[in-house]
Amino acid sequence: MKNKSLQFCALLLCFCLGACASPDDPAQPFNAYRMVDLTHVLHEQMPFWPGTGSFEIERLADYDVGYRMHRFSMWENNGTHIDAPAHFIEGGSSVNEMGLDDLVLPVAVIDAREQAARDPDYRLSVEDILAWEERNGRIQPDSLVVMNTGWHKRFSDSKAYVNQDEQGVLHFPGFSVAAAELLVERDVAGVGIDTLSLDPGNDLSFPVHRIILGAGKFQVENLNNLDTLPAAGAVAVIGVLPVKDASQAQARIFAFME
Amino acid sequence: MKNKSLQFCALLLCFCLGACASPDDPAQPFNAYRMVDLTHVLHEQMPFWPGTGSFEIERLADYDVGYRMHRFSMWENNGTHIDAPAHFIEGGSSVNEMGLDDLVLPVAVIDAREQAARDPDYRLSVEDILAWEERNGRIQPDSLVVMNTGWHKRFSDSKAYVNQDEQGVLHFPGFSVAAAELLVERDVAGVGIDTLSLDPGNDLSFPVHRIILGAGKFQVENLNNLDTLPAAGAVAVIGVLPVKDASQAQARIFAFME
Repeated sequence: MKNKSLQFCALLLCFCLGACASPDDPAQPFNAYRMVDLTHVLHEQMPFWPGTGSFEIERLADYDVGYRMHRFSMWENNGTHIDAPAHFIEGGSSVNEMGLDDLVLPVAVIDAREQAARDPDYRLSVEDILAWEERNGRIQPDSLVVMNTGWHKRFSDSKAYVNQDEQGVLHFPGFSVAAAELLVERDVAGVGIDTLSLDPGNDLSFPVHRIILGAGKFQVENLNNLDTLPAAGAVAVIGVLPVKDASQAQARIFAFME
Repeated sequence: MKNKSLQFCALLLCFCLGACASPDDPAQPFNAYRMVDLTHVLHEQMPFWPGTGSFEIERLADYDVGYRMHRFSMWENNGTHIDAPAHFIEGGSSVNEMGLDDLVLPVAVIDAREQAARDPDYRLSVEDILAWEERNGRIQPDSLVVMNTGWHKRFSDSKAYVNQDEQGVLHFPGFSVAAAELLVERDVAGVGIDTLSLDPGNDLSFPVHRIILGAGKFQVENLNNLDTLPAAGAVAVIGVLPVKDASQAQARIFAFME
């Protein structure tokens, strides 16, 4: 997590160049950009990590006293959320210490839907990343790289999303150790996925967490709507709750793209 | 809260025109934009409405088991947050029903710091709004209008921020009823302030809430860093937590400006 103000400005420039492409057509930019919500709605029936707790909402007051009021109780990993280095790394930075430069950044989307459909334990490989780079150019430093496993479409069905077998083993795709190491080598700012964890469900030793967070990068888990993103060219705005000393926290995440 | 995709695109166009103003100077856009965080950090010692509850964070696991994990408990009005119509209006929309168009919008900032410094019970007047329009043009439909009372600088001192007298009456500035009615007439999308409430602290009948939320608009309370915004020209991105059926919810809010 380092200063990326120049890069942020460059992103705005990309937006701008797109909109200025047809300067004689003032209507052009009105159809030029899309905004997509990458966030799952928070509610009590949504999937959560087995053995931890779910999101809870309690009604404390209602219209008979003049207004409606609730209290939320949530584990810091409920729903679409950020993992800061402090989640696994003693002395690592907390979510409220993420710089603004880390919260607006380009998104590279690696499509692993076919692999994950064939094998729920699929681990994104170095070859998958190199194939993406072959088509889209080298992954940018200080960007967010996300794996689209297709799992976000299962979020409305907790059983299918968590996918726990009779022995208690979770089966959802994730990153391989070698892929995580390559992304650190590329000096990305963060790594994301549309499952419960960057590590595949069947590896509870969390090696990918240790590599990504250990390198001072952040993680995004339980992303939504990755199907709507281009492989390259979108910009994410990460509205993570700035909770003091939290190791993870819920985020509202938007993507903007042509 | 209605469809404002055209307006959103127009905002991007504004960004773009700014960045394209010097097409022969590729470095120009690199210094053209600022990003400001309008959000207070969430922590247990921050101010909250007397008689309600504070934000709480509980440590559930630590590095001896391999990772750190917390649970948050918060009233839906703790910290920088959105009020949806459902907060006061039966049948009104909830925070998760806000359209994306309501979450990216231009910000008009009305500076009432001098008035609030003289009178902590100050109510923003119609004349204050008309004076803003005299200098900046008519308030745009579907925009966010915020009152800068200077109170955001007191947030680190709960006693000064809540400002409760010996009789239990709260003293912080807010909007007058007539000002709220004018903003509804202007058809803004939302109204914000850097205090605990759009209503001044000494009016617990909440007439401004009833007018703004009753008109289907949203509110933003406990905003931060309003001093850093221009009177006009900034764009807010409101990352409100999409909590199902919540009448209010915490938000991470950024502003972008030249």
